[in-house]
Amino acid sequence: MIFFNCDYNEGAHERILQRLMETNMEQTVGYGEDAYCQKAAELILQECQAPEADVHFLVGGTQANLTVIAAALRPYEGVLTADTGHINCHETGAVEATGHKVLALPGRNGKIRAEQVREAVRSHREDPSFEHIVKPGMVYISNPTEIGTIYHKGSLGKLYEACKECGLYLYIDGARLGYGLAARDNDLDLPFIARHCDVFTIGGTKMGTLFGEAVVITNPELQKDFRYMIKRQGGMLAKGRLLGIQFLAMFEDGLYYRLGEHADEQAMRIKHALIEAGCNFSFSSSTNQQFPVLSDAKLKKLSEIYAFSYWERVDEHYSMVRICTSWATKTEDVDALIRDIQNL
Amino acid sequence: MIFFNCDYNEGAHERILQRLMETNMEQTVGYGEDAYCQKAAELILQECQAPEADVHFLVGGTQANLTVIAAALRPYEGVLTADTGHINCHETGAVEATGHKVLALPGRNGKIRAEQVREAVRSHREDPSFEHIVKPGMVYISNPTEIGTIYHKGSLGKLYEACKECGLYLYIDGARLGYGLAARDNDLDLPFIARHCDVFTIGGTKMGTLFGEAVVITNPELQKDFRYMIKRQGGMLAKGRLLGIQFLAMFEDGLYYRLGEHADEQAMRIKHALIEAGCNFSFSSSTNQQFPVLSDAKLKKLSEIYAFSYWERVDEHYSMVRICTSWATKTEDVDALIRDIQNL
Amino acid sequence: MIFFNCDYNEGAHERILQRLMETNMEQTVGYGEDAYCQKAAELILQECQAPEADVHFLVGGTQANLTVIAAALRPYEGVLTADTGHINCHETGAVEATGHKVLALPGRNGKIRAEQVREAVRSHREDPSFEHIVKPGMVYISNPTEIGTIYHKGSLGKLYEACKECGLYLYIDGARLGYGLAARDNDLDLPFIARHCDVFTIGGTKMGTLFGEAVVITNPELQKDFRYMIKRQGGMLAKGRLLGIQFLAMFEDGLYYRLGEHADEQAMRIKHALIEAGCNFSFSSSTNQQFPVLSDAKLKKLSEIYAFSYWERVDEHYSMVRICTSWATKTEDVDALIRDIQNL
Amino acid sequence: MIFFNCDYNEGAHERILQRLMETNMEQTVGYGEDAYCQKAAELILQECQAPEADVHFLVGGTQANLTVIAAALRPYEGVLTADTGHINCHETGAVEATGHKVLALPGRNGKIRAEQVREAVRSHREDPSFEHIVKPGMVYISNPTEIGTIYHKGSLGKLYEACKECGLYLYIDGARLGYGLAARDNDLDLPFIARHCDVFTIGGTKMGTLFGEAVVITNPELQKDFRYMIKRQGGMLAKGRLLGIQFLAMFEDGLYYRLGEHADEQAMRIKHALIEAGCNFSFSSSTNQQFPVLSDAKLKKLSEIYAFSYWERVDEHYSMVRICTSWATKTEDVDALIRDIQNL
Repeated sequence: MIFFNCDYNEGAHERILQRLMETNMEQTVGYGEDAYCQKAAELILQECQAPEADVHFLVGGTQANLTVIAAALRPYEGVLTADTGHINCHETGAVEATGHKVLALPGRNGKIRAEQVREAVRSHREDPSFEHIVKPGMVYISNPTEIGTIYHKGSLGKLYEACKECGLYLYIDGARLGYGLAARDNDLDLPFIARHCDVFTIGGTKMGTLFGEAVVITNPELQKDFRYMIKRQGGMLAKGRLLGIQFLAMFEDGLYYRLGEHADEQAMRIKHALIEAGCNFSFSSSTNQQFPVLSDAKLKKLSEIYAFSYWERVDEHYSMVRICTSWATKTEDVDALIRDIQNL
Repeated sequence: MIFFNCDYNEGAHERILQRLMETNMEQTVGYGEDAYCQKAAELILQECQAPEADVHFLVGGTQANLTVIAAALRPYEGVLTADTGHINCHETGAVEATGHKVLALPGRNGKIRAEQVREAVRSHREDPSFEHIVKPGMVYISNPTEIGTIYHKGSLGKLYEACKECGLYLYIDGARLGYGLAARDNDLDLPFIARHCDVFTIGGTKMGTLFGEAVVITNPELQKDFRYMIKRQGGMLAKGRLLGIQFLAMFEDGLYYRLGEHADEQAMRIKHALIEAGCNFSFSSSTNQQFPVLSDAKLKKLSEIYAFSYWERVDEHYSMVRICTSWATKTEDVDALIRDIQNL
Repeated sequence: MIFFNCDYNEGAHERILQRLMETNMEQTVGYGEDAYCQKAAELILQECQAPEADVHFLVGGTQANLTVIAAALRPYEGVLTADTGHINCHETGAVEATGHKVLALPGRNGKIRAEQVREAVRSHREDPSFEHIVKPGMVYISNPTEIGTIYHKGSLGKLYEACKECGLYLYIDGARLGYGLAARDNDLDLPFIARHCDVFTIGGTKMGTLFGEAVVITNPELQKDFRYMIKRQGGMLAKGRLLGIQFLAMFEDGLYYRLGEHADEQAMRIKHALIEAGCNFSFSSSTNQQFPVLSDAKLKKLSEIYAFSYWERVDEHYSMVRICTSWATKTEDVDALIRDIQNL
Repeated sequence: MIFFNCDYNEGAHERILQRLMETNMEQTVGYGEDAYCQKAAELILQECQAPEADVHFLVGGTQANLTVIAAALRPYEGVLTADTGHINCHETGAVEATGHKVLALPGRNGKIRAEQVREAVRSHREDPSFEHIVKPGMVYISNPTEIGTIYHKGSLGKLYEACKECGLYLYIDGARLGYGLAARDNDLDLPFIARHCDVFTIGGTKMGTLFGEAVVITNPELQKDFRYMIKRQGGMLAKGRLLGIQFLAMFEDGLYYRLGEHADEQAMRIKHALIEAGCNFSFSSSTNQQFPVLSDAKLKKLSEIYAFSYWERVDEHYSMVRICTSWATKTEDVDALIRDIQNL
């Protein structure tokens, strides 16, 4: 069985493990206050051209999301998101568990637009019962989105502008950020992102670390006492250096970007093979997640060898699946898959 | 100015005040453990033909909703509701503040149907990521709904059946229950309601008390330690007898029902006048809330004398408003309004 | 049976009921935005000589406490209190329910001192693990305290100074404030209190209203969006004017103060009778709550006619009880009690 | 500098890293549902002789504590603990963040006794205001405690018996369990522990894994839907196998126990050297944490080479420090420390 079902099937890039081996018996202080975390943070800030930002390393994405959101909002505020947003769909109410409503807006290709944000805020403000309605306090987006689509300088810039106009924070969940940055049609880079949001994450787990998300807080208002929040929410790793070492390995010579490129390239190869085979795609993704619509017969055939994520039934005879590549995807496995697509 | 904008503009029915006066200097124990609360509870249980149920008196509706829901759900469970549900729209995230997600379903006339509940539960159970998704634990409906519509024996019976099949609690918010019971097309009564849900409220505030909602818990699973929950959520009234005295006054000779009838009757008179005047109605309500669509010119005219709740703009020239009658509505005020509608 | 067990056995002062009667059928807007609430707020601010402060009216004390504390603290902050503080002992964890730790300090006569606050903050700051420890964010005191003792200008002034030095908010729970202000040895007044804390309450429930606590927010930092918080916590009364009308009646001609004086006077009479009868007192209270130590034999005798609150066993033969007077205490009942004490 | 300040200065035992290397490129399902987690769970249950128990792997101790406690308690319930308990002191209010009060009892040597639990429950039940007081729902202990002391069959057995009598769950935080099991005076083993509590953890982080706590739930009442709770609290690791692989390495041939023995042995050597040098000890610990009282002069001298945790000032000239050994402590470092103690 060859797994194309998600991007965290394997362990970590070999360099990560090597670094963990090399540093294993060093004695360091705990809880992320060691020299590795400090160096990794500096490196990330350099990449972001954001020397005044803060970087914190957390183990997982849900943890990062709930901690950032709970730290940023006043108790009666909620967070706007596309209806497909990870915090709305797949975190078992982790944000609500911190007391905040998730305010879902209808997404278009998994994304929300500046106008939607403005309209949501206007509609709240003009409602005579506004105090009886959760106040929007933050916008959450993911890039790439949960369906593989990406924001561009235009759309992100406008969204940030709308947020600032409306007094909202903008938070970008970058669980798969590397796959977004490597997309052929991408025009974002870390410095642009850092200048066009209040806080964002650079995901490690899905990009080749064992685990870990770097939370980059560019807005000084959100920086104060963030470590208290991490500890309160149960997210402070005792051997915090494990996070620093991994992100250091990722960013010391651009490995992070290269792994993103590899995955996207393989995803594009599969996508083209599917297009040539006559498949439709529900979303136009240029990143490592592809959502083709396959006839059940063809799906059954491919599923004998390859594991995909079943997404949803399209009609009586067709289903949509998710095909994921990752930093770990082997070119020969993609070769095989393409051959089998061609022979369907 | 004559107010038809909501059903809590006045104080309380005169009998309520009289009873409060009569009992004012009696010394009783606090926190709802006095003889008046006990008698009122007994009376209500008798009306409900539910001798094994528990009755608790809370001051307000949001308080009742959040306390019931937080008491019933496990931390990772959410509550299904119509998208127009009060807990979803007008409680400033009070349910989320207790850590629970509100799971909105598209309502039809403010109501949800048994099939929607079954489908929501099925879809959750069959999702391979089910543990990453908030688990439905309760269904919340209001009767009448926020737009004045009501459930019938058929629809409520099926909904309750679906809940039991799916392992969900059914909670009925009866903030305006009396107006529902008095509707011409209503076939529900308290005993039927008590047998077809796990917990419900009988609203006082909008029905002629100064304040107060009676929470009737018919499912023994939800009865344990409920008073702890009330206190924890800040909802335990020191002079609890004020609640008992008021509900006693309401139910000792059927005043509650008569007040409902009065309001609905007046609402129907207004409705018919509006229909005759050629108005459209967005929802078919037979209770004390009516939602006519009026031309802006006519609305402006009427608004010189009468206050309505502005609901939403329908198009360039028309708006929907809410017209509310209540236990306190004067027949002569309705006469005047009808005359003015006829003369528009 | 004559009740001296607490100060909320009766309904309300007759003037309150009269005012509710007089205004009963007026139509007003809801949720505390009516003219009565506005006038009552103005009157209170005038009494406090604090024209810039905000006043909000809530139904109950626990509700007021949890709403104020949850509004003021960041998620990882806690509230310092004497171990006997109401929020620590008798609110079923209502503060913890909003996510905040109650940080109990050993009280002396129910009070905490400036040095204790400074020491708590110093100890937190100097701890190398400070981020792993709840950060003090607020000091909660009650005046009178839960055991009837009061703060003076000296002690309150120093406490407030310590709070400002340490970056903490000071919150005074004035559930029985009127009984404190009327005490013989009291030197506080509303303007001094308003200038020496960030937020405080003026309690109505125990002072002769049916219910109601006025929350006075003097620190502008705490004023923003407080009504959202009230609604979120389930504390917004639909017929909010009931609160305004009651506080108006209390403050329009000093009734509030006179009721406090009456209760304290009666309490002093009982206290002196007990002292003459050779009773010891655990706490030196000059307000309406007295805590004599009585032999079980004498207690049994008195309990045939009078109800007290049993507080705790002192030794094999003696118990401490709480004897409460209130705005409603009849002089002749106190006469009778004194006679029976003298004849023990 | 040689670090004796805590037991998580290094990475992981070499075997752990080796296993992670060997399995690194295998493709497995995520979120702890892989074969490694399953095997590790089976092994642990075998060690515990508790085939019916459930095992879940979480990343950290605070996370494990807050998830277990929030899963077990009803909203109005609190958790009893020694005042020195980790949940009370060093988790930034993580338990309160889930809405529950931590009920601290005065510890003796960091432990609480059966009588204290019975008394706390009795005192709550007999209080006439019991519904206004947080209800004890669980007892939390740690073994070894935060100050290195351990429970024995007698004390643990009685505590569990008291819990069952009182209707409380007993939870044992075993963050350092291996150091407890290896103590010379220990008589506990995993099967006894599993039979005498409702849920406990077997700590990895401080015992030689990179991270990880195994939560063993023996009481079936607590087993249902626990994975939802993990996800909701942000504690579900995407590459869950990392936890399974580590615990497998720890338990496949008793490595866990041997690492505990090594650390305790080294701690005893240091302890004896200190005793011979005339030091006093505040607590009688037989595990890897020792708390000697040292003169400031001697402490300063030793601190030139060795790092300890400063605990507290004892008097003008003496301080208490914590000296920790661990699975990673080198015998030659202990030799050097002992020599330097002898030469003080």
